[in-house]
Amino acid sequence: MPGTHSSEGIPANISNLFRSPVPRQSKELQPLMANTVPQTGQKKPQASEKPEQRLPAEPSSRAKAKARLTRFVSYFAGDMAPLAEWMKGQFILFQILDWVLRGAAQVMFVNNPLSGLIIFAGLILQSRWVALNGFVGTLFSTISALILRQNRGAIAAGLYGYNGILVGLLMAVFSDAGDWYWWLLLPNIFMSMACPILSSALASINSRWDLPVFTLPFNILVCLHMVATGHYNLHFPQVLIQPRTSYPNITWSELDYAKLFKSIPVGIGQVYGCDNPWTGGIFIIALFISSPITCVHAVIGSAVGMVSGLALASPFEKIYFGLWGYNCVLACIAVGGMFYALTWQTHLLAVVCAFFCAYLGSAISNVMATFGLPACTWPFCLSALTFLLITSETKTIYKLPLSKVAYPEKNLIYYLKMKKEEKAEKLKAAKEQVELQEKEAQIAKDEEVKITIESQEPEQQEAKVERTTATDTSHEDNPPEYPGVTVSTEPIMVELSVL
Amino acid sequence: MPGTHSSEGIPANISNLFRSPVPRQSKELQPLMANTVPQTGQKKPQASEKPEQRLPAEPSSRAKAKARLTRFVSYFAGDMAPLAEWMKGQFILFQILDWVLRGAAQVMFVNNPLSGLIIFAGLILQSRWVALNGFVGTLFSTISALILRQNRGAIAAGLYGYNGILVGLLMAVFSDAGDWYWWLLLPNIFMSMACPILSSALASINSRWDLPVFTLPFNILVCLHMVATGHYNLHFPQVLIQPRTSYPNITWSELDYAKLFKSIPVGIGQVYGCDNPWTGGIFIIALFISSPITCVHAVIGSAVGMVSGLALASPFEKIYFGLWGYNCVLACIAVGGMFYALTWQTHLLAVVCAFFCAYLGSAISNVMATFGLPACTWPFCLSALTFLLITSETKTIYKLPLSKVAYPEKNLIYYLKMKKEEKAEKLKAAKEQVELQEKEAQIAKDEEVKITIESQEPEQQEAKVERTTATDTSHEDNPPEYPGVTVSTEPIMVELSVL
Amino acid sequence: MPGTHSSEGIPANISNLFRSPVPRQSKELQPLMANTVPQTGQKKPQASEKPEQRLPAEPSSRAKAKARLTRFVSYFAGDMAPLAEWMKGQFILFQILDWVLRGAAQVMFVNNPLSGLIIFAGLILQSRWVALNGFVGTLFSTISALILRQNRGAIAAGLYGYNGILVGLLMAVFSDAGDWYWWLLLPNIFMSMACPILSSALASINSRWDLPVFTLPFNILVCLHMVATGHYNLHFPQVLIQPRTSYPNITWSELDYAKLFKSIPVGIGQVYGCDNPWTGGIFIIALFISSPITCVHAVIGSAVGMVSGLALASPFEKIYFGLWGYNCVLACIAVGGMFYALTWQTHLLAVVCAFFCAYLGSAISNVMATFGLPACTWPFCLSALTFLLITSETKTIYKLPLSKVAYPEKNLIYYLKMKKEEKAEKLKAAKEQVELQEKEAQIAKDEEVKITIESQEPEQQEAKVERTTATDTSHEDNPPEYPGVTVSTEPIMVELSVL
Repeated sequence: MPGTHSSEGIPANISNLFRSPVPRQSKELQPLMANTVPQTGQKKPQASEKPEQRLPAEPSSRAKAKARLTRFVSYFAGDMAPLAEWMKGQFILFQILDWVLRGAAQVMFVNNPLSGLIIFAGLILQSRWVALNGFVGTLFSTISALILRQNRGAIAAGLYGYNGILVGLLMAVFSDAGDWYWWLLLPNIFMSMACPILSSALASINSRWDLPVFTLPFNILVCLHMVATGHYNLHFPQVLIQPRTSYPNITWSELDYAKLFKSIPVGIGQVYGCDNPWTGGIFIIALFISSPITCVHAVIGSAVGMVSGLALASPFEKIYFGLWGYNCVLACIAVGGMFYALTWQTHLLAVVCAFFCAYLGSAISNVMATFGLPACTWPFCLSALTFLLITSETKTIYKLPLSKVAYPEKNLIYYLKMKKEEKAEKLKAAKEQVELQEKEAQIAKDEEVKITIESQEPEQQEAKVERTTATDTSHEDNPPEYPGVTVSTEPIMVELSVL
Repeated sequence: MPGTHSSEGIPANISNLFRSPVPRQSKELQPLMANTVPQTGQKKPQASEKPEQRLPAEPSSRAKAKARLTRFVSYFAGDMAPLAEWMKGQFILFQILDWVLRGAAQVMFVNNPLSGLIIFAGLILQSRWVALNGFVGTLFSTISALILRQNRGAIAAGLYGYNGILVGLLMAVFSDAGDWYWWLLLPNIFMSMACPILSSALASINSRWDLPVFTLPFNILVCLHMVATGHYNLHFPQVLIQPRTSYPNITWSELDYAKLFKSIPVGIGQVYGCDNPWTGGIFIIALFISSPITCVHAVIGSAVGMVSGLALASPFEKIYFGLWGYNCVLACIAVGGMFYALTWQTHLLAVVCAFFCAYLGSAISNVMATFGLPACTWPFCLSALTFLLITSETKTIYKLPLSKVAYPEKNLIYYLKMKKEEKAEKLKAAKEQVELQEKEAQIAKDEEVKITIESQEPEQQEAKVERTTATDTSHEDNPPEYPGVTVSTEPIMVELSVL
Repeated sequence: MPGTHSSEGIPANISNLFRSPVPRQSKELQPLMANTVPQTGQKKPQASEKPEQRLPAEPSSRAKAKARLTRFVSYFAGDMAPLAEWMKGQFILFQILDWVLRGAAQVMFVNNPLSGLIIFAGLILQSRWVALNGFVGTLFSTISALILRQNRGAIAAGLYGYNGILVGLLMAVFSDAGDWYWWLLLPNIFMSMACPILSSALASINSRWDLPVFTLPFNILVCLHMVATGHYNLHFPQVLIQPRTSYPNITWSELDYAKLFKSIPVGIGQVYGCDNPWTGGIFIIALFISSPITCVHAVIGSAVGMVSGLALASPFEKIYFGLWGYNCVLACIAVGGMFYALTWQTHLLAVVCAFFCAYLGSAISNVMATFGLPACTWPFCLSALTFLLITSETKTIYKLPLSKVAYPEKNLIYYLKMKKEEKAEKLKAAKEQVELQEKEAQIAKDEEVKITIESQEPEQQEAKVERTTATDTSHEDNPPEYPGVTVSTEPIMVELSVL
């Protein structure tokens, strides 16, 4: 810690010591991908300077083309940061549309309005009534967040919309009153407006462990609505769900491999409550546009769910219907590159998490059926939260600080940069220590000489007062959570010599 | 931060700067209502001095009468602090009686023995056996807290009694063994003595988010007793509660408006498990004596519950019986002025919370019925905790620190004072900064002159180094939850060299 | 706070002030029992020095014999630390065997491979198939912890094995497919390998309150497996468990006192799912070898459970079968001397906790039966966690920091030492203050003299430097929970004048 050094005699050196962390930090905070606009918006000019520096003076036409392609891809891939930046100055209704589309895609952890648009197309293909409910849910959820004055950045990233769309969609799917029962919009609006309340409340709890709220608000609110009304309700009846009380009729020879294969896209579609394989296929495209890593993990997750269903002797219809897949899809995406930096260890962990999630899904759907409820995405939430709470002594399982989470590709770049910087810093620290020791030895020598002189001239002796103050920054419950933001909890000692 | 200012040349000014916070803070801690005795007991003489200073030298007879009335009201309204103060020197049995009565009223967040007495009268009107069980519960719960050496101030405020009274009352209400089944007192005493254990344990958890435990210990313990014994028990049978398995018989033309109106006081009575509208009316009076704001919110809450019951097509009997009301009553009181400072925003929030609570009440009562359990006050606890966990960027939704919570009127005064002081401080800070800048400019000028002189007389040069370090260990309660929000917790370093 | 003392004139004193805490702390961290190897491994040579210092120069033969006996006992009693130390250099398979045996015993909080060996003997006596499953569970759970790079010390203490053995045993016990159904090993291995994941995740949460995870991972995973498959599963059917729906047939005259007495060892056996009283007896011996206090509390707990069963009118078969006992056994051990230092207050608390646990056990088993699940050890986990969360103003209920928990005897010695040191420190602090005051008085006198001199010789006046340091009392983790408890968060101000 800089504050522990003695300040005597080396003022120039000290000011460097104190100032050096600042530029180092700002460097760390610089945009991690040259082509994306920084989210926190610092030092854009510097960011645009860099690529030029990197490029050779006279780049080949191929390099040029590649650069142009990269820039072009950046306009619609990833989190479409340039659009988000441009949107900031636009008319509020345009902005809200952007937020709603991003919210629709955020269900799959994708912060991309184009993906959101494609997803809405898929929903309309499934059912126009359900899609309408989903849109109403996202819209009112976002509006409610604005009324409650939630963080504008989070709203703009669609983080207050994804629970709303799920609430809207699933309330329509599980309603027993048939399509186009307009009264349903009333509880839909009420529940989707309650989403930001629950999101905010749950975030207060989960943030203590630097965890996201996932789709917990949606799970709570849809279960609330369904169990509050139930199947035997005159206003808002729900579909009847009952626990299993006899052996299922399973004949292994009847297993249909075509349907089994189709269950993979269906499983992805079931994240939004859609059983149409084409809708699932459209969702896969929407994922690929924003982040191929996410897309791959979604497919792996759905496959793992299907296999688990077979292993636990589930009725085939449930497997074909994608009910074993959708939780695994989400869990696999979350652990595989989204909240952990992607390494082969975390990739394996994601697969294990998908298996665990499938098991949990079967358990929760049996428990919930006792109350006439579907499993919703409880299995995903619980398994992903569990796997994100793991602590390990290995560095290859690196959980990203929540504020740094973007999309798997960007997360990976952040992780690799951090590792490189860490190495560089270690080297530097070792060097500095050597230098410091040399300097101290020199100072000690000088002082010896001084003391000798002083002892010869006692009348010129001056009062030297040393004060050491230890400010004890008593233990902090929430230790520093983000790299780049370090909190010095060491007592700072200041020595003051008055000559 | 004070530590960042330069201290040279303005010692008189500085000592003021550093000392000023102390009286300012003590002022903040002064009694907020002149007529009430401060809870923490600091500087009573000063408090009694103040009203005299405020009053003009020769007050009109009307002002005098008003002052007298205010003082008179303070003797039995609010938290009856004068009585609490006077009680401290009395015989322990008298004190325990005071605590028991306060405990009875604390169910409604009222810290007032007179209200407690009236509430007991209402309970006796309902049923003497139930009232006896309630008294036994409060008494043993308070005694258990004394044995476990819980905080004496909290015991004296009745905070260890309210769960006991509810445990006693509801165990008697839900017992299937009939009135005056004396054996029931055994589990009653055991469970009410377990209340402080659960209160203490839950407080350890909830205090991390500065939340109260509400009636969670009661909910846990009554559910524990009921489900541990159940309907088919030979010693302690419970009333049979079963889930709904068919459509209720609802004919809208049969709706009885008189009963619907009566359901409002009945809903308030059901907080204590009483279905007598007169008992509910007595409770309203008890609330009004201590705090009119609480009283108004109780009535609003009960009305909201009734409306929700109609909206969700509940059987009319449940609505008339007040089962839709009591949770909303408590939730509306808690959010409307008790734990949030009362503004019109929090008032609206309280109404929303009451609606949410009604929804949740229906859901929880359906889930609990599966286990043969009533909903107790789980809906209130969960909805109020959720709404108290909300974080927002608006300042009009101000959650009081738990240690400052008294009753809505006092809370409001605290909030208004705090706002005024904040404004004053801002003004002062702005002023000071201007002054500081002027001074610095002056110093810079002086130094220029000095340097010129010094360069002419190098042999008289003295080295003066001053370092002031302010380490701001600003505790970070709610770390940034979303990307784009970073909090710099870096130690601030200021170097000032005066040559 | 050291920083608040004046440093003038007593530089030698200061360095003592600052350095003294270090040796004092290291003393505190020294091994508490001379014969045990310190867990954290600091300063062994010093530890071995001490006993020699303590022993008189020429000890009597009796003292010698006693010392020898103590050393001999230490080889297999307690946590067998010498063996653990010796094991560190051995072949990995030997080490894993040691960890597996310790894991088997850790179910009862015993960190002792000999006890583990005896427990395995008891299990084989019960059923070889069940014992095999238990062994597989422990083994794979430990291996999984190694793969996940969990803390090596915790693994070596068997803390990653005890959930695995329970998962293995209970999955075999509750399987409806009969003994030697080899496919069962597949989910057994999967679930026991998931144990360290859940342990790590739950520890992240519980460590915030310095609480252990107990057998929560086992409870979650076994319930997960059972409810995911259920009774009506073709691959992994579970035994059918159904809720009670009629009055039990209880005739008090038929109560069999012999069976009632036998239910005490059976209750201890049921911790591992064994209903054989001899197995239970063997477990009692295993407990006694490591820690007599643990053994006594286990027996008390089992007896309390039996009595509670009678009080709550349980069917006699359940009592005879030990189902009322095993949770109370664990709860009584945990509270009585294991996580609280043993005083007669905590002993009473342990008995109360056992009663509470029995009540909770009945409740939870009724609730879980709705889902076809057994109670597992949920009642123990929940009641023990609740009782460990209690905060009290009495010092006789002392919860040990989790890192200091060993076994009841060692915990007690730690507690007594700590109390003694506290007393000594208080005395020392009082002494120091007196000295300081005297010194200050002396300094004040000296200064007066100085000032008088200075006023006579103004030309020799020296520069006055003022330093003001604000130590910000950083955020307090556990804020005051109740009115009347205020924490002063005022900045401490120190002013120092050097003349």
